[in-house]
Amino acid sequence: MANHLTWIYIAIVSGVASTAVAIYLYFWVMKQDPGTEQAKEVASWIKEGSKAYLLKLYRALGILALIIGAIIAVVFSIQPETASGGAVTMIWKDGLTMAIAFVGGALCSGIAGFLGMRVAVEANVRTATAANFSLSRAFKLSFNAGAVLGLAMVGMAVIGMGLLYLWTGSAEAVLGFSFGASTLALLAKAGGGIYTKTADIAADLVGKVEVGIPEDDPRNPAVVADNVGDNVGDVAGMGADIFDSYVASTVAVMLLGASMGLSQAEHVKYTVVPLVLCLLGILASLIGIFLVKVKEGQKPGPALNRGTIITTIIFALFLFVFVKLTGVNQGVFWAALTGLITGVIIGFTSDFFTNDEQKPVQETSRVSTSGSAINIITGFSYGLISIVPSVIGIAVATLVSYHVAECFGMSGIYGIGISAVGMLSISGMIVSADAYGPIVDNARGIAEMAGMDHEVIVRADELDSAGNTAKAITKGFSISAAALTVIALFAAYAEVVEAAGVDLAISLREPLVVAGVFLGAMTPPLFSALTMLSVTHNAFDMIEEVRRQFREEPGILAGTQKPDYARCVSLAAEGALSSLILPAFLAVGLPLVVGFLLGPEALGGFLGGSIFTGVIFALLMSNAGGLWDNAKKFIETGKFGGPGSEAHKAAVVGDTVGDPFKDTAGPSLNTLITVMSLVSSLFAPIIALFHLIK
Amino acid sequence: MANHLTWIYIAIVSGVASTAVAIYLYFWVMKQDPGTEQAKEVASWIKEGSKAYLLKLYRALGILALIIGAIIAVVFSIQPETASGGAVTMIWKDGLTMAIAFVGGALCSGIAGFLGMRVAVEANVRTATAANFSLSRAFKLSFNAGAVLGLAMVGMAVIGMGLLYLWTGSAEAVLGFSFGASTLALLAKAGGGIYTKTADIAADLVGKVEVGIPEDDPRNPAVVADNVGDNVGDVAGMGADIFDSYVASTVAVMLLGASMGLSQAEHVKYTVVPLVLCLLGILASLIGIFLVKVKEGQKPGPALNRGTIITTIIFALFLFVFVKLTGVNQGVFWAALTGLITGVIIGFTSDFFTNDEQKPVQETSRVSTSGSAINIITGFSYGLISIVPSVIGIAVATLVSYHVAECFGMSGIYGIGISAVGMLSISGMIVSADAYGPIVDNARGIAEMAGMDHEVIVRADELDSAGNTAKAITKGFSISAAALTVIALFAAYAEVVEAAGVDLAISLREPLVVAGVFLGAMTPPLFSALTMLSVTHNAFDMIEEVRRQFREEPGILAGTQKPDYARCVSLAAEGALSSLILPAFLAVGLPLVVGFLLGPEALGGFLGGSIFTGVIFALLMSNAGGLWDNAKKFIETGKFGGPGSEAHKAAVVGDTVGDPFKDTAGPSLNTLITVMSLVSSLFAPIIALFHLIK
Repeated sequence: MANHLTWIYIAIVSGVASTAVAIYLYFWVMKQDPGTEQAKEVASWIKEGSKAYLLKLYRALGILALIIGAIIAVVFSIQPETASGGAVTMIWKDGLTMAIAFVGGALCSGIAGFLGMRVAVEANVRTATAANFSLSRAFKLSFNAGAVLGLAMVGMAVIGMGLLYLWTGSAEAVLGFSFGASTLALLAKAGGGIYTKTADIAADLVGKVEVGIPEDDPRNPAVVADNVGDNVGDVAGMGADIFDSYVASTVAVMLLGASMGLSQAEHVKYTVVPLVLCLLGILASLIGIFLVKVKEGQKPGPALNRGTIITTIIFALFLFVFVKLTGVNQGVFWAALTGLITGVIIGFTSDFFTNDEQKPVQETSRVSTSGSAINIITGFSYGLISIVPSVIGIAVATLVSYHVAECFGMSGIYGIGISAVGMLSISGMIVSADAYGPIVDNARGIAEMAGMDHEVIVRADELDSAGNTAKAITKGFSISAAALTVIALFAAYAEVVEAAGVDLAISLREPLVVAGVFLGAMTPPLFSALTMLSVTHNAFDMIEEVRRQFREEPGILAGTQKPDYARCVSLAAEGALSSLILPAFLAVGLPLVVGFLLGPEALGGFLGGSIFTGVIFALLMSNAGGLWDNAKKFIETGKFGGPGSEAHKAAVVGDTVGDPFKDTAGPSLNTLITVMSLVSSLFAPIIALFHLIK
Repeated sequence: MANHLTWIYIAIVSGVASTAVAIYLYFWVMKQDPGTEQAKEVASWIKEGSKAYLLKLYRALGILALIIGAIIAVVFSIQPETASGGAVTMIWKDGLTMAIAFVGGALCSGIAGFLGMRVAVEANVRTATAANFSLSRAFKLSFNAGAVLGLAMVGMAVIGMGLLYLWTGSAEAVLGFSFGASTLALLAKAGGGIYTKTADIAADLVGKVEVGIPEDDPRNPAVVADNVGDNVGDVAGMGADIFDSYVASTVAVMLLGASMGLSQAEHVKYTVVPLVLCLLGILASLIGIFLVKVKEGQKPGPALNRGTIITTIIFALFLFVFVKLTGVNQGVFWAALTGLITGVIIGFTSDFFTNDEQKPVQETSRVSTSGSAINIITGFSYGLISIVPSVIGIAVATLVSYHVAECFGMSGIYGIGISAVGMLSISGMIVSADAYGPIVDNARGIAEMAGMDHEVIVRADELDSAGNTAKAITKGFSISAAALTVIALFAAYAEVVEAAGVDLAISLREPLVVAGVFLGAMTPPLFSALTMLSVTHNAFDMIEEVRRQFREEPGILAGTQKPDYARCVSLAAEGALSSLILPAFLAVGLPLVVGFLLGPEALGGFLGGSIFTGVIFALLMSNAGGLWDNAKKFIETGKFGGPGSEAHKAAVVGDTVGDPFKDTAGPSLNTLITVMSLVSSLFAPIIALFHLIK
């Protein structure tokens, strides 16, 4: 392996290249035809709403980041001199470095999300317009727009981590960066998830059910908020979700590499390896993205899957060559490959539970003829069963990557971390394929609202359904990647504590650990409950507002008067932001409370417990939600009575229950457990010291 | 402390006394007026149906017990002589003893359940008849009938454990007894839970929703199966549930006492202590039960709660005196008290989430005006939050009982076990108050079917609602008791493995342990899904059958022809029994697969994982189910539109979703984790040996 600094420079260059391509694609999208005046007007409502919400969110998060940054600056400046009996000196440089890292992480994550959202609100109307001409043109536009988010995200992450490591030479500073990114991601994800489902449920319940107007009808006052929700929840939030796993897994491996107790040269080599994996993943993703094309008459779904598979293969080849040429331990290759293969397998099993050609969706649709209760029990049960293959996959990946690494004389835990990085290294491609979905969804909404031809809507539907498999795969992928990441972070936490001089067994035979696990295990369900209750609570308010507009302004339903879209947009925004306070405290505060009160062993148990139930509830909620959604769609194709039948009504209830499951609570859980692991690792030396002194 | 044998004799005598009082009460109930011919006929249908199902169930379980017993007889006869290179000798006496213990445990549990069911099917019609005269008379009858189950259960348990210990002098043999009792309990509970909800859902969906006839209408072909379900699910199943925790906690403490490494005399003393706690609990329960009375004009609810509180206080007094007089370590008193207080506190917090005077039920009722989806999301979210206080309670009880025990120089883990035994020692009273509920519920059904006066039904309703708080308390009680029991069993497992010569850290830093925890954590959700899918699947079949009867025999709905009750009863029975195969394998087989395949460390992790999610899902499902039930009932009192309103329809859907949550999946989970812990402890020496040789 060449000088490690060389590799970091190359990685940063690849990050810059990735970001440059993203910016190029952004301007390419902007150059496309934005369509008719009517379409532009509709799009501008969505654009304004999205911008308004994100600005509010980022303002709130900016203040929060500065506060946490200030706390970090103070706390990490304190250097207790235990030898001299409790006296402390303040080394401000250490604290400031960490605070800058934290704020930098939040900033990078924010910029990537903002850029993705910006392009999404421009691409939606252009995709709708392009769909007037052809499917392939609309596909190219929306996929390239999705790639802006995917490439910007990995680019910003690698630039940020690389520069920080060059500057400080310390993996701990990169940990601060990761903590900043994840904190922002958690709030963006949870806030966006609450926002989008509040608007969605309110729009559907009053619009479709009470008044009987179709989806995306411009007479519905909540329809703009609903479409804004797709952007702020699905595009900005989802990008942040994988961004944080991407950075966290890299950091976990850097920390583990730094603590492996090798010679200085070896030590640096293993610390830099995860950044090299990111670099290779970016190159593979760039190639994969440019190979994704749909010719006229072809289906868009297989094109997306082909892109993912090609990227995976190219990445594996690059890695193999890298390992051979540089003499890095071969275990790195095999562990990364284990992660990649596991990710793909778990992705495809998630698809089994949500695909309408398989038993779970079909059976749930069939029993819907006996009413919504049976639909819900059945869907929920299949959701519970869907946990099994993924959990077995995670367990097997953990054991295999550990043993593969040990076989090649590497630390086994390091191997687990590498498997997570391997899985996430192709995030550029994965996110591109995923961000495509909500853009197309929005395009369909604009086509409907702007009164475009029926043909356009049919094409948009076809593009949309192509995104479903990609979406299912991404979900399985991101949950399993997060699981492996937090296992690696957990190991890093233990290393950091031990480095501070505390012996850490985290044995389940210790009652403190058992108590910690119980407390950790209850946190993901509690977090889910708080976010879902916010949705029902806010939706209840918005339903009242929509009803009020219909009641007080009869012109709205008659189509002669424009509804007050802005009122619904700001109701959803304020509701979502004020709902974030308690969840944010849970994520950042609870680990610290447990750590300082019960000690590092209990905190270890706490992290373990949160990982186990976090993964389980994330899988349950994502898969059950997707299953209910597709059972409804399956009935809408004419099965079991088709649209309007009793079975359909029952399936609509299931779908509505599933909405906050799959789009609010479920996807935030990955990020929750990542944030809790990061804050614990970051504060671990201080907690350890506190308990040593006590 | 006097000779330990003396105490065992006294305990056995108390068990005999308890059983004798149960038999006396049984005959007292039988002597009461069984009422009119019509009532007797209705009751006989329920009686025949219950008997038919239980006989089928016990026949199947008998065969299973003999098979497992035979396997145990062989496996525990094997004495490998590792020194002489793999040769084995067979010591049949050891194997046969263990097999007899296993079959004995299953038998005792079965007899207690059968007796409880027998008295329930006689008491229901007599309670209905007594309600013709007065509330207090009906209360006395139904409560005494409930006490038959409560007292028989603790009596049989103590007799069985006492005799077995006298005979063998070994705590391991009592472990076999406990495993037998729990295996039977699991299948009785899960089978009964599937049976009762299959019939309930089918009866409601076709009867109330499709045809529009009231609850318990004799024209409904599924109505007898529904009432049979109350007996086989709630009475026989629920008794078995607490029976198994009761025995398992005692065994766990006996094992821990035996492994404390004290002198022989001290060792025996601590092994016998849990049986003494059982003895004192029986005495306190006998007194408490005889003090429960309702004068005319008084409410029955407070009488039940008073009984529980009086029993708790008397038990604490007895224990204090016992500890003072015999010189047993005072830590026993304080640890037991910790358990008792925790149990009562958790019981009352469960009540908070299901009581219609509190926010959760009221808020869920309110949002029902926006439809069933919002009702379900809200109820589910509160169910998730309800996990929090109980889990904190369990964590605190674990830590406090551990440290209290250590303060008095006892083993801390032993203290945790004692806290579980302390909590469960008053089971005689708890089960009596709980078994009263389904008897009254059944009495109401008979009164309706036999066309008794409206006044009788009003009285039955009042008796029924009194049972609700008792039921909520019992549920919180049984889940937290099971949690502490399995924590103690977990410790016992580790002791047994270490006694076999394997060093067992069960550290979360070991990937094998992490993989084990993941696999264990997925088991309770999987088990829940399998039992709930059985309910929807079987209910779907029974719905078809009920529809068929209405269609082919128009005389049924006209009231001129008796429906074919027996067909529905046997459909439910066969469906429930055939659904038990996979869950039974999961409970007994999966721990062995993990143990032999991945080793004792991974099995330790597996048990830990199953405990954490088992407790969490049990709390979620029981509390959410109870909450939905009471939200529906709250609306039925005229709130938010009252019966027949849109809110009511929405709440009915929530209630139906909650049915298998609270009566099928939720309550089986305690028993599932107990069975898995017991089978692991039982086979631990063999698993340890297998991995030492390998």
